[in-house]
Amino acid sequence: MSRSSPQKANEFQIIEAYFKDLTEQDGVVTGIGDDGAVIELSVSSNQLVVATDTLLEHVHFPSSATAERIGHRALCVNLSDMAAMGAKPRWFTLALTLPKEYAKESWLKKFSTGLADVASEYNCALIGGDTTAGPLTISITVIGEVVEGQSLKRQGAKAEDYIYVTGTLADGAAGLSTINDIYGCTSIDIIERERLVNRFYRPEPKIAEGLMLNSIASACIDVSDGLVADLGHICNASGLNAEIFTDKLPVHANVKRIFPDQFLSWALFAGDDYQLCFTVSQEYRALMSVWIEEGIIDATEIGVMAVSSKISGQVLIDGMPVEASKKGFDHFE
Amino acid sequence: MSRSSPQKANEFQIIEAYFKDLTEQDGVVTGIGDDGAVIELSVSSNQLVVATDTLLEHVHFPSSATAERIGHRALCVNLSDMAAMGAKPRWFTLALTLPKEYAKESWLKKFSTGLADVASEYNCALIGGDTTAGPLTISITVIGEVVEGQSLKRQGAKAEDYIYVTGTLADGAAGLSTINDIYGCTSIDIIERERLVNRFYRPEPKIAEGLMLNSIASACIDVSDGLVADLGHICNASGLNAEIFTDKLPVHANVKRIFPDQFLSWALFAGDDYQLCFTVSQEYRALMSVWIEEGIIDATEIGVMAVSSKISGQVLIDGMPVEASKKGFDHFE
Repeated sequence: MSRSSPQKANEFQIIEAYFKDLTEQDGVVTGIGDDGAVIELSVSSNQLVVATDTLLEHVHFPSSATAERIGHRALCVNLSDMAAMGAKPRWFTLALTLPKEYAKESWLKKFSTGLADVASEYNCALIGGDTTAGPLTISITVIGEVVEGQSLKRQGAKAEDYIYVTGTLADGAAGLSTINDIYGCTSIDIIERERLVNRFYRPEPKIAEGLMLNSIASACIDVSDGLVADLGHICNASGLNAEIFTDKLPVHANVKRIFPDQFLSWALFAGDDYQLCFTVSQEYRALMSVWIEEGIIDATEIGVMAVSSKISGQVLIDGMPVEASKKGFDHFE
Repeated sequence: MSRSSPQKANEFQIIEAYFKDLTEQDGVVTGIGDDGAVIELSVSSNQLVVATDTLLEHVHFPSSATAERIGHRALCVNLSDMAAMGAKPRWFTLALTLPKEYAKESWLKKFSTGLADVASEYNCALIGGDTTAGPLTISITVIGEVVEGQSLKRQGAKAEDYIYVTGTLADGAAGLSTINDIYGCTSIDIIERERLVNRFYRPEPKIAEGLMLNSIASACIDVSDGLVADLGHICNASGLNAEIFTDKLPVHANVKRIFPDQFLSWALFAGDDYQLCFTVSQEYRALMSVWIEEGIIDATEIGVMAVSSKISGQVLIDGMPVEASKKGFDHFE
């Protein structure tokens, strides 16, 4: 296939020219270019996890974003759902709606390079796509394999299970503030600036952590809408409350220093971190401590699940109840 | 889950309230409401077919379309790709971008009813979704099962294979003309009007035909962009030309009568019919004749695949070469 001169690209040329190289991988019997893709599961596997997420310009990324960074973010955010389910991502499809002015070499090549970077890092093959003209909208469906009965769910946390979160919180919001040049970010040095911008555009899907945890954690979610909102989903699904402690929340020292007035509310309520929030029973708490101490997993214990006679689905922050469902991002408000 | 009062629906409520009922089916281990769905394949199966298609208002359906009809069309069009691959559809995901004024009971209930009608007719379960605010955009990814090595492809036609098409052509264009009240359609009686409008909004995915053909046909495609354009894809993928004969094209008698000046160009070049166009070797031609005669399959022989020393990828209509790749609908032209 040729990558030449699609200045006036049509649909078929777009897929052939920019995305076909992303399809070659084990398990792809027929890739892009037919009415559908044919995929083949590993011999040992008969359960799959499927997740769909849509990104819109202005809503999920600023219009200043380069095509390459949009490609990074679109796939990372979708792979994060696989991590949250304890699944190994294998394949994805792309429904790309793009304005006519983007349907040209310069934009498409960068966007597909961004996608390809992430796809190859996580061994996930693009198997199908559809392009239509319209406002920039990127819908990705990821399919992953999971060991039978070992997928992680929001449901399943028990009272007195300990609550953990991977990595650091508030980096996503700090990254977006840096991109938008608001709050204290004029004083950030170039290295930290790049780290934070990257944390927004290329959040690390915690695939390895999800696979490690899928026989250990009692419940799991990825922090896309904010810790309190997402932990609230675990609470609602499990019929419990959660108590978390702000002094335990893992926040990068630089973020604390640069954004002293914002970091705590970001750690609690801002989205875009794509860390895993998960619960572990008393039985596995010692194992978690060993894993954390030995650096096998980068995670922090931040609280405990609790039963209440009155109401469930609440997150208590330092003892203060917050109605989780009111927090988090809502596109229709 | 409650279906009450989502006048100001948020994302989570939309999925819970309107789409969760569409998930219950064999093979769905975890449905809507988590970071991803968990599905389980039949014991006998280890190959899947995956296809993605996006529908936009104004482009893929008129803005006069009711929400229910949009639901019908969105899923039918996507299931047609499964038919073209010879696969049995099992599961689908929905990425729904919708304007704020549609995010209310009246629209959503009708849309989900439309989807549910088709989903239940074809035993296909909704397993995941994402809703965002924006211009109406419906991206569906369908996952189906296929017997190992028996998926139908565009590639694989051989010289002297016979070309067939299921059902009748030109109904989709006649339906759209009826909806838009153009050409001769003011004279159509109410029964035929309803039949044609339905052919546009609820084209029948030829699933049973695809399953029958997946060990018989040498190549197959669904007619979404027009017969010549789609047969052209078989020609290109197979390195051959095709010869078709206009007097053999199956067109409904009423369409010929109502649209005497348009039916032939519609049968050749108009999209939206979602019939299967497929090729069969000499070996199976007798079997096809029996199937057609006994009404086992509704299909018509319309031509033959041919090799040429000069150029491949061409469709010859009554001996006249037409460059297939220039035909068909292109969103970016």
